[in-house]
Amino acid sequence: MSFPYGVDYYPEHWPEKRWLKDAELMNKAGFNIVRLAEFAWSKLEPRRGEYHFDWLDKAIEMLSAKGIKAVLGTPTAAPPPWIVKSHPDVLRIDGYGRRAAEATRKNYCPNNPVYIEFSKRIVEAMVLQYKSNPNIVGWQIDNEFMGDPCYCNNCIEAYRKWLKAKYGSLERLNEECGLIFWGQQYSDWDEIFPPRPPLTMQNPSLNLEWRRFTSDSWVKYQQEQVDVIRKHTSRQFITHNFMGMYKELDYFKLAENLDHVSFDYYPKWGAQMDLAPLAMCHDIMRSLKKRPYWIMELQSGAVVTSQAPIPLPGQIRLWTYQSIARGADGIVYFRWRTCRFGAEEYWHGILDHDGVPRRRYAEVKKTSEELRRITPYLERSIVKPQVAITLVYDNIWAWDMEVPRGDKNYYGESSWGPTLDCYGALYSRNVMVDFVEPTFENVEHYKAVFVPSLMLMDKRVEKNLRSYVEKGGILIATPRTGAKNWNNVIIEDTLPGCLSDVFGIEIEEYTGLPGSERVNLETVGTELTVQNVHAGRNWAEHLVLKDANALAYYQTGSYKSKACASMNKFGKGVAVYVGTFAEKSFYEDLVDWLTKKGSIKPVLPCAEGFEATERINSDSSVVFALNHTQNSISVKCSGEKFKDLSTGKEVNERINLASFGVKVLLRQK
Amino acid sequence: MSFPYGVDYYPEHWPEKRWLKDAELMNKAGFNIVRLAEFAWSKLEPRRGEYHFDWLDKAIEMLSAKGIKAVLGTPTAAPPPWIVKSHPDVLRIDGYGRRAAEATRKNYCPNNPVYIEFSKRIVEAMVLQYKSNPNIVGWQIDNEFMGDPCYCNNCIEAYRKWLKAKYGSLERLNEECGLIFWGQQYSDWDEIFPPRPPLTMQNPSLNLEWRRFTSDSWVKYQQEQVDVIRKHTSRQFITHNFMGMYKELDYFKLAENLDHVSFDYYPKWGAQMDLAPLAMCHDIMRSLKKRPYWIMELQSGAVVTSQAPIPLPGQIRLWTYQSIARGADGIVYFRWRTCRFGAEEYWHGILDHDGVPRRRYAEVKKTSEELRRITPYLERSIVKPQVAITLVYDNIWAWDMEVPRGDKNYYGESSWGPTLDCYGALYSRNVMVDFVEPTFENVEHYKAVFVPSLMLMDKRVEKNLRSYVEKGGILIATPRTGAKNWNNVIIEDTLPGCLSDVFGIEIEEYTGLPGSERVNLETVGTELTVQNVHAGRNWAEHLVLKDANALAYYQTGSYKSKACASMNKFGKGVAVYVGTFAEKSFYEDLVDWLTKKGSIKPVLPCAEGFEATERINSDSSVVFALNHTQNSISVKCSGEKFKDLSTGKEVNERINLASFGVKVLLRQK
Amino acid sequence: MSFPYGVDYYPEHWPEKRWLKDAELMNKAGFNIVRLAEFAWSKLEPRRGEYHFDWLDKAIEMLSAKGIKAVLGTPTAAPPPWIVKSHPDVLRIDGYGRRAAEATRKNYCPNNPVYIEFSKRIVEAMVLQYKSNPNIVGWQIDNEFMGDPCYCNNCIEAYRKWLKAKYGSLERLNEECGLIFWGQQYSDWDEIFPPRPPLTMQNPSLNLEWRRFTSDSWVKYQQEQVDVIRKHTSRQFITHNFMGMYKELDYFKLAENLDHVSFDYYPKWGAQMDLAPLAMCHDIMRSLKKRPYWIMELQSGAVVTSQAPIPLPGQIRLWTYQSIARGADGIVYFRWRTCRFGAEEYWHGILDHDGVPRRRYAEVKKTSEELRRITPYLERSIVKPQVAITLVYDNIWAWDMEVPRGDKNYYGESSWGPTLDCYGALYSRNVMVDFVEPTFENVEHYKAVFVPSLMLMDKRVEKNLRSYVEKGGILIATPRTGAKNWNNVIIEDTLPGCLSDVFGIEIEEYTGLPGSERVNLETVGTELTVQNVHAGRNWAEHLVLKDANALAYYQTGSYKSKACASMNKFGKGVAVYVGTFAEKSFYEDLVDWLTKKGSIKPVLPCAEGFEATERINSDSSVVFALNHTQNSISVKCSGEKFKDLSTGKEVNERINLASFGVKVLLRQK
Repeated sequence: MSFPYGVDYYPEHWPEKRWLKDAELMNKAGFNIVRLAEFAWSKLEPRRGEYHFDWLDKAIEMLSAKGIKAVLGTPTAAPPPWIVKSHPDVLRIDGYGRRAAEATRKNYCPNNPVYIEFSKRIVEAMVLQYKSNPNIVGWQIDNEFMGDPCYCNNCIEAYRKWLKAKYGSLERLNEECGLIFWGQQYSDWDEIFPPRPPLTMQNPSLNLEWRRFTSDSWVKYQQEQVDVIRKHTSRQFITHNFMGMYKELDYFKLAENLDHVSFDYYPKWGAQMDLAPLAMCHDIMRSLKKRPYWIMELQSGAVVTSQAPIPLPGQIRLWTYQSIARGADGIVYFRWRTCRFGAEEYWHGILDHDGVPRRRYAEVKKTSEELRRITPYLERSIVKPQVAITLVYDNIWAWDMEVPRGDKNYYGESSWGPTLDCYGALYSRNVMVDFVEPTFENVEHYKAVFVPSLMLMDKRVEKNLRSYVEKGGILIATPRTGAKNWNNVIIEDTLPGCLSDVFGIEIEEYTGLPGSERVNLETVGTELTVQNVHAGRNWAEHLVLKDANALAYYQTGSYKSKACASMNKFGKGVAVYVGTFAEKSFYEDLVDWLTKKGSIKPVLPCAEGFEATERINSDSSVVFALNHTQNSISVKCSGEKFKDLSTGKEVNERINLASFGVKVLLRQK
Repeated sequence: MSFPYGVDYYPEHWPEKRWLKDAELMNKAGFNIVRLAEFAWSKLEPRRGEYHFDWLDKAIEMLSAKGIKAVLGTPTAAPPPWIVKSHPDVLRIDGYGRRAAEATRKNYCPNNPVYIEFSKRIVEAMVLQYKSNPNIVGWQIDNEFMGDPCYCNNCIEAYRKWLKAKYGSLERLNEECGLIFWGQQYSDWDEIFPPRPPLTMQNPSLNLEWRRFTSDSWVKYQQEQVDVIRKHTSRQFITHNFMGMYKELDYFKLAENLDHVSFDYYPKWGAQMDLAPLAMCHDIMRSLKKRPYWIMELQSGAVVTSQAPIPLPGQIRLWTYQSIARGADGIVYFRWRTCRFGAEEYWHGILDHDGVPRRRYAEVKKTSEELRRITPYLERSIVKPQVAITLVYDNIWAWDMEVPRGDKNYYGESSWGPTLDCYGALYSRNVMVDFVEPTFENVEHYKAVFVPSLMLMDKRVEKNLRSYVEKGGILIATPRTGAKNWNNVIIEDTLPGCLSDVFGIEIEEYTGLPGSERVNLETVGTELTVQNVHAGRNWAEHLVLKDANALAYYQTGSYKSKACASMNKFGKGVAVYVGTFAEKSFYEDLVDWLTKKGSIKPVLPCAEGFEATERINSDSSVVFALNHTQNSISVKCSGEKFKDLSTGKEVNERINLASFGVKVLLRQK
Repeated sequence: MSFPYGVDYYPEHWPEKRWLKDAELMNKAGFNIVRLAEFAWSKLEPRRGEYHFDWLDKAIEMLSAKGIKAVLGTPTAAPPPWIVKSHPDVLRIDGYGRRAAEATRKNYCPNNPVYIEFSKRIVEAMVLQYKSNPNIVGWQIDNEFMGDPCYCNNCIEAYRKWLKAKYGSLERLNEECGLIFWGQQYSDWDEIFPPRPPLTMQNPSLNLEWRRFTSDSWVKYQQEQVDVIRKHTSRQFITHNFMGMYKELDYFKLAENLDHVSFDYYPKWGAQMDLAPLAMCHDIMRSLKKRPYWIMELQSGAVVTSQAPIPLPGQIRLWTYQSIARGADGIVYFRWRTCRFGAEEYWHGILDHDGVPRRRYAEVKKTSEELRRITPYLERSIVKPQVAITLVYDNIWAWDMEVPRGDKNYYGESSWGPTLDCYGALYSRNVMVDFVEPTFENVEHYKAVFVPSLMLMDKRVEKNLRSYVEKGGILIATPRTGAKNWNNVIIEDTLPGCLSDVFGIEIEEYTGLPGSERVNLETVGTELTVQNVHAGRNWAEHLVLKDANALAYYQTGSYKSKACASMNKFGKGVAVYVGTFAEKSFYEDLVDWLTKKGSIKPVLPCAEGFEATERINSDSSVVFALNHTQNSISVKCSGEKFKDLSTGKEVNERINLASFGVKVLLRQK
């Protein structure tokens, strides 16, 4: 199969007489794949047990005649009205006892046995219908799982069982979660209820367990469908469409039993996003399985937010290349033609409501022609970063629940704040990054590992990181790393806890910095080769240097002239600890130091709005140069020579990019 | 009967011994009308079926002895406690399943059969008691109906029936509302539930139907009472007190079976309002029946908002004249004496809590004396605008529900935004305006018709507007006009849809303009006689001129130098299309162009804070000159001569107005 | 017993093997008291009727061996899970019908008979166990009572009975609460329901009654426990920990049957507080019983708010002295060691999570050593202010419910706004203040009494204040004083009502001043000796002077040149009325005038951030000089000589204070 390139298509939204024209236009655009049937349950099974596949068969047939194969979505994200009417208890109950709304999607409970049963039946019916159809290449389970909790009785019972299975005895639960606080020790498993809002008035350990249970419930619900499909077919792949930096589910677990991850990429969704988090979404997606992923929905028009701007000429092409550049091995645009009705009537596709091909159609068509030329160079190429950042969903949940106010926690930080400080510095320097889960992934093959506020620490993680430094790794940690155990209980030891010897420090005292208060930290030139002043926000720790050297001192604030960041040689490696939420520029100094000492190598020189990535093959690599700005950009090649894969010409002085321009370059090893 | 001039009076709030003094003071103030009994259900019927009219008889008698007649309010806006206690299900249920609060007003369900029955009984008892009383001139139904939805089982059942009556078959409902989206096709009428919040996750067509059903439910509830009254009396008028720009009910339908509309006018309520929307409220009220209306509540003191300011000396008189100037044929102040207790204890009346007549009493007394002199000139005079603006409540509801965020929709606009752009320009030029409902009102007699973002379009409206232009009318439309059908489904044709040939354009592409982004549009001098630059906000459409000429081009933004507004000669008329939300000044250029070419004629020259209107009689007209500012204003008469109806003197050079000043002038035809 | 100095201790949160070390460290810190067992119900009674006191006996024993006695908290603030599971109806129901969350504290209904019974049983079991234990000196009931209302059926029934007991007949209830408004007259007691949100749509008189009932319910719940304890022991004191300016309960009533008030003092909790309200909290606490109080929780670390700052070096000591300076006769820090788990894991104590004594431990240890020296001088000394401010909780509730928007009411003011204007002026001048409840406290012994917006007025209060002025007192009142009766109904007379003759004025008119609008008021030099201009906010009254002289005139606004504040000689005294919310500086002029004419005497000269108070003994007094700033402060002694009680040296020229410095000085009479 050639590089999968296509679109999400909903033939059921349009009259049959239009289908042929759609298929022809898709074919001309160079499409070879569509995703189908994702929300069609009420059409596939309009009444209990009454299946209608004829329309879908016909659509598949018509598309395949034009060379287009299909991924089928299981339609369980939206229960048909007849299920909701006959079994209203399939609807989730929220923490205030309110039932989710009827007549919409994502309103069901993942632990409801009736809904699970209905889900398995429709999936099995579809699999039996299409398992042998050569035009069906894979399955997408449900759609964009979210971690909404449910407080129905099924869930409460399941939660109690889940806790019992994990803790064994109430004594252990009471003890390990500190339930003596406010006198909440249980004397019977049935006394347990899930934590209701406001969570700040509930036990933090059980708050975290409830999040874990909820995430597990959704993973389990997905697995029920995976099992049904796998029972009947091994030829077709199974995937799910993930949402980048969405963080309410343990994405590592959700990805585990899938063949590959898919990503729904909407760069202009919501508020204007910075470039670094956009790139970071791709890196997380790729990192979940350390394997190529698909884009299952790529923005191809204005999306459904107030005053939504349309993609400017060149942007859809740019996002397509960016996705491939970061590891995507399939591109599916969302959606073919903008729907005329329903809640997503303004979620624009490649075609507008009138179905007339215009500028955006021409752009994806042109892109498909270009892609054909470079595809051979991409085969079996992979992204292989030298730097890793830890990503632990348990930690995000615990972090977010630390005395939250709005979207900030006790430390004044949002979920991704400390991560983005580090990632932003690496991104701006064109250094590629993997995200690693240190409870089960060994990190030894990375040159440097950033540990942004990994508050939760256990033996597995401690051992992994300690051994990493001992063997020569460079570890960089930010505030609260190691401050709690896996039960979300604060450690008994002096901070930073079990890795104190690795960092060579102790934390004497800490304080919050309310509001817009900032501290200045001055880096020590002898350590970082430059002596700069950076700002620290929200939080300040007074470090006592045991074995470590100072990396930065406080210039201001109540800890003035105390150590703020440290660097320790431990074993064959180096461990850096940063005692405040330092701004990105501080980490840029660190990255530059890593570059200078030869530990890591940027893909290309850096420039504002310029992104460069590399996909590596056995004997060469493909370098992507991407201009995210509306101005032209020119960067030096620094002595290297590249082959421009679109023109075949050599590039050896400068790489020049027009507005939203892209260059795909061959780098010989 | 002389010009109705009076006050809302609640004798039941005061000791009987005070009533005589009140009647005497009212008489001295020149009052001849009161509204009574509006919230007195629990006093009129303290226990089921036990009626007490003696106190009301006595109050009516005492007032009539002082020459004061009465309008009676049916007291159904506030259920008495005994109904709520014995039938708690009369209380509305909100979208989250919560019952409305006891012990307050406006908490009942309009579809509850028990409440409807109790309502009809109390109304019938009152009508039987007062139908022959010569001092009772009319009835006000309930009080300030609002369009609150109810999710009780009665309402759910009624909604299903309403849909069934409208669509006939589920196939049609599924098809016309696009219920295939997210797989919500119904297989049984009982599967239907009203859309619960958040509505952005529900079907837009059914969202609109639910709003229509809710509005219809309230109109139907009113009709039950109208029928009871009409069964027994035809001598007394029936009205209801409307709320200006309130938009949750179809005010045209609510007004249809009433004798006249009444308006509750609180110019200083809530946030400081601009002058244009205040005037617009009156124009909407008059337009509902194209007939004179009453002011049933006119602010005469500070109203119940935090830090409420008192009307300044002269303002109550000014608002009184403004109301008459725009078509009111009756003035009733709210309220006589400020209530000492209850939820409206700070909704001040003419008298303060202590019942002592002071400055505000003196002002309404003086105003009554003036009014007596001008009343003869007002008789049978009417407001007769040359310009109309379309007003369709279905369209407002659909507009508001387009992907709302806060009080802004997908286009970044609030309900009245585009209307106020047009109205504001006409108001600032002293051009009077009617609001028309194009599904049933012919617009041919207007010189110009503005169509501000009339998104919903059907055959009736298309035919009305097309024929209007063909026959010589001037039509001005703003973005999204014609973009959807009456089911709130986006049209299949290229925009602007069925009127594309009338406008002579096609819309190639559009984009939102997030946040405070603006585009500049430069008008074309050859079309508008002036060449100006104006700002467009929130939304930009790239127009392709088929037959039309450009009226304005984009000077900035991604559509720079594309056409932004067009003007097309079609039939004997002209059709203007504006592809962005242009600021008021753009429409002022258009109004000035209409004035210059003689299509329309302003009442008087314009000045900041100066309002001029005209009431027309067979052989003369009365011109009202109103100064809303605290400074004096002087405008030229432009060669005309007027007679000042207060002084009898001629005014021929300038009209001079003191702070909050008013001149009532006779203009000979 | 020496000066009670200690800490809140939760031995149940720590392994027994640590207890001895804790006791030793406490002993070294000079502690002689702990509070214990406050939230330990689920440990004391893990199953119904199964009591476990062994662990507590052991902790008490270990502490007493180190010279530390204990106050026991009754553990009822947090129901154990077995009660909630077996009797879910002990959980409160909110105004929307939602049950309070399980597994937390402060979630129970004070009128639930089951919960009351369980509460009495655990309290009785504890009292029987410890009434004869010489190491237990007192009891704290529950923890930080709050006035949360409950809408369960028990509460509804109790509310009906409470109203019946108060009003006797429905006729009186209907009449006195103005239930005729919106036709809400009751014909049966069972028709009564508590007011549900939004309260702005409910009857203000019943809103107030519901607040009174709720407050009474909590006071009654406390009394049940007081009665149980008093039945068995009279040796041990009974207290409760109050929360300063918390205002949802009638603190005078809550304090009435306790031996002394305790105060939980967290100066850095929530948003940065100004100094005046911090001091005011102490003055309210002392005033509740006009008797020394304890600090039961004094902040000794960062508290659980986002970005919480740590107390700076010297601050804990400063707050300790400040508490004693304002009348505290016991200091208990919160808490010993920061808890590692539970909802308060970031409510830091003296020790951090690791239990290592650091800077904060050293500070409280040093403070205990100092205290030992000054304790003899404090014995039997009391705070004895010359000035009083009225404090009526009924008035706060009524005030807050006057058409609220956010935390502002109809007058644009928050609960404490007018009080803080007056208090702030007195505080800045180092004049000490008592808070008095004029319905039962005679105010004659004060030189001046401020009456900040005492809206509610009845015969008791009128008589108290009138007699006070007649006999020579100086009364200062701010807007709306006397505007309503005790039923929260506006008076029928012209404002300011029954005290009009005392103030010698009438209020002709008033207006709100929306938003940031301000009026300038110019004081009359002949009255106040200075002629200054101050700003007035939110509200303006036009005063007509009957007998009074003008104290200030409006310089701006629509009442320009009308009287804004007045001064009237009445009997032997003076009554001042202020018709706008004047800023603090206006009251500073008034305080300076009182000082100049010799009515009152400041403790020491004033300076920014400098606080001075005095505790008086029979023959001498102890003056506390406190520096709340990070800079040094020096104030003149003004000819007086003091003895510095720490050094024994004489201080006669200037009192010099370092950053956060404290001087305790002996003043000979």
